[in-house]
Amino acid sequence: MTETLTHPPRSDIQIESVLHALADPVRLRIVRELARIGCDGIACGAIDLPVTKSTRTHHLRTLREAGVIQVRPVGTSRITTLRRDDLDALYPGLLDGILAAPH
Amino acid sequence: MTETLTHPPRSDIQIESVLHALADPVRLRIVRELARIGCDGIACGAIDLPVTKSTRTHHLRTLREAGVIQVRPVGTSRITTLRRDDLDALYPGLLDGILAAPH
Repeated sequence: MTETLTHPPRSDIQIESVLHALADPVRLRIVRELARIGCDGIACGAIDLPVTKSTRTHHLRTLREAGVIQVRPVGTSRITTLRRDDLDALYPGLLDGILAAPH
Repeated sequence: MTETLTHPPRSDIQIESVLHALADPVRLRIVRELARIGCDGIACGAIDLPVTKSTRTHHLRTLREAGVIQVRPVGTSRITTLRRDDLDALYPGLLDGILAAPH
């Protein structure tokens, strides 16, 4: 558990990386759930996903490294939130458009 | 030149495919250029891209099959347009958010 949770600052977020991170059904499901939950965030493990733990970890890392989510350690948990302010500032309308998609 | 140019109807367009198609710098460049040109469209070959002809063809096919662009034969050319109405109807704000990204 010594992995450092790096997050790109807003100025380093790249649209291609954000779109790649979002172009996956499991990662979209995570993003939809985080959008529903809002600012409080949720423990990563509490999001219901039909994948193994290592796959879940991979998807969360992809989203975090692209700048889509923030993961912060709180006690023994990791609380995940959507970086909505950053994404809305960089790409106004992008997240809302994606969340409007049928699924 | 007997390849049939298939296009998904609006109801078959999938958000994951659209995001995957857009998550590439060359394809984003094509989309930005088509957005700039608007409804009249442009001959596929007239878009200035730093890639080979076969790579260009691959990128255009990816965009077409995802439902992002429309390609129609006109004489010996193929005129390409952005499916802006379809994308704006399905994912309001998505394209504008992406086009707002610095590049």
